[in-house]
Amino acid sequence: MSSPGRDARVVSRPRDYADRVSQTTNEPRDASVQPDPAPGGAVPAPGTPVVDTAGSSAGTSAGTAAGATSDDVQRAEDRLDLLGLLAYTELTSFARLAASSEQAPAVRERLELARYAARAVQRQGQVLARIAELGGDPTARIAGFDGIYDDYEARTTPSTWWEGLLKGYVGHGIVDDFCRLAVDGLDEASRAVVLEVVLDSEADESAADELLRAAQADAAVASRLALWGRRLVGESLGVVQALLASRPGLARLIAAGAARDAAERPGAVQPRTDQAWVLSRLTAEHTRRMGRLGLAA
Amino acid sequence: MSSPGRDARVVSRPRDYADRVSQTTNEPRDASVQPDPAPGGAVPAPGTPVVDTAGSSAGTSAGTAAGATSDDVQRAEDRLDLLGLLAYTELTSFARLAASSEQAPAVRERLELARYAARAVQRQGQVLARIAELGGDPTARIAGFDGIYDDYEARTTPSTWWEGLLKGYVGHGIVDDFCRLAVDGLDEASRAVVLEVVLDSEADESAADELLRAAQADAAVASRLALWGRRLVGESLGVVQALLASRPGLARLIAAGAARDAAERPGAVQPRTDQAWVLSRLTAEHTRRMGRLGLAA
Repeated sequence: MSSPGRDARVVSRPRDYADRVSQTTNEPRDASVQPDPAPGGAVPAPGTPVVDTAGSSAGTSAGTAAGATSDDVQRAEDRLDLLGLLAYTELTSFARLAASSEQAPAVRERLELARYAARAVQRQGQVLARIAELGGDPTARIAGFDGIYDDYEARTTPSTWWEGLLKGYVGHGIVDDFCRLAVDGLDEASRAVVLEVVLDSEADESAADELLRAAQADAAVASRLALWGRRLVGESLGVVQALLASRPGLARLIAAGAARDAAERPGAVQPRTDQAWVLSRLTAEHTRRMGRLGLAA
Repeated sequence: MSSPGRDARVVSRPRDYADRVSQTTNEPRDASVQPDPAPGGAVPAPGTPVVDTAGSSAGTSAGTAAGATSDDVQRAEDRLDLLGLLAYTELTSFARLAASSEQAPAVRERLELARYAARAVQRQGQVLARIAELGGDPTARIAGFDGIYDDYEARTTPSTWWEGLLKGYVGHGIVDDFCRLAVDGLDEASRAVVLEVVLDSEADESAADELLRAAQADAAVASRLALWGRRLVGESLGVVQALLASRPGLARLIAAGAARDAAERPGAVQPRTDQAWVLSRLTAEHTRRMGRLGLAA
């Protein structure tokens, strides 16, 4: 009868914990994915077997692609890490938007949020397709990030519809900004996919208009939401910190992107791109984002 | 942070109850939607205003389209009823598949169910587009059916993952079969949309393979699922009975379809198409469906 499945939520949920435990760091990991085809990087000989065992319990490398340097292999691995993070984030966006759809106050919002949820699945498909093109295993790459938002979830339970909307707007915005910081460290094709996905997902988080109206209409609502926003950004930055610590590849991409950016602008000084720099950049973007809602960050 | 939103489920859910209450029957209702363009039916004069106030609290008719007979108007209204039912069913499919995705035992199933949920939204979009083409208000047409599965939901809580899968397979199958019984009463363009949607949704309820394997592997599982299937079909047929009683337009479509079918086959006797006939047809299809799983109906 195509049930909304509300009751089904009591069914136990044996998520693949073994998989997650084996992925708390991204090394050691099979490194025989396709190396970075960027200028100067060696490309694999035709017919070179491409195997991605990320997410499996294999702890030893099956060997590197013929002709690839260890730098190429690491770059390829880092790239798959960022794509995996983005794909997993879209999967959780789907789940969040679907749950919001179920709880929407009226059918119009319910339909709109269902459409947004469907678009998150489409965006995820774009990222997974790129992972597959690069010789990665899409499912394993997503599984490698499974659970990274669980703690954040447990600590930020919205108590109103507006708080739920702001949670999506703030949380998604910070992940998008994080991907933007790292995107210049990618090859061109992957970069295009990431930027398209980030841009499209921002358009869908159109909660901004509704939040702006709610905040303008009621100063008490605005003040409560501003407080909630500060809580959300603190928790979100905690997730980013944990990611940077457990996934050195993401930090390498950010550094590579900043280096490329500095090289292209004569006279520009390359920033330090350490954790404090990343967090300050994300905080600045968050402040701008809250400002667009008329809320104090 | 694109949260899975599990916690958000505790947020109160002020669905538009007033809307639902005003829609417990489909009459009286504004009847000035586009009349049936079938051969013999008068078409509205160009520029005839088309207004669909289904779902509003308007209790009086705003008048019929110029040149349309009351039969045409009723046919147009009945058609929008079936399309609204199908669109609402796809919305609840989306919600059910999204919830199953959240509870899936591993990332692979989680991704697959998210894709199915997204496809349900796309199918819904096809139906809503047809409603709009016919001059109906898509949101109001969906809102008119809001809540029809709530009682079914409350009475069929799956206690295992398999029971949840079977619930989708059985429940969705019965609604699809119901739409098939009524589809021959539609105009050609609407008929094509409904058949395409029904066919596509069946392909997505691919739980059949997994259920078949589970039943073949363990006789105790097969026996429990057979029992659960009997429970589900009873509850599903209860929903159909309630629909036929509250929406006479759906029964009219089924009768019109059977009449057309009989007219096209010389010597065929037109069936009575009463409630008992509808339920017996749906039960027979259900029995075949359970048979494909190797389960006794």
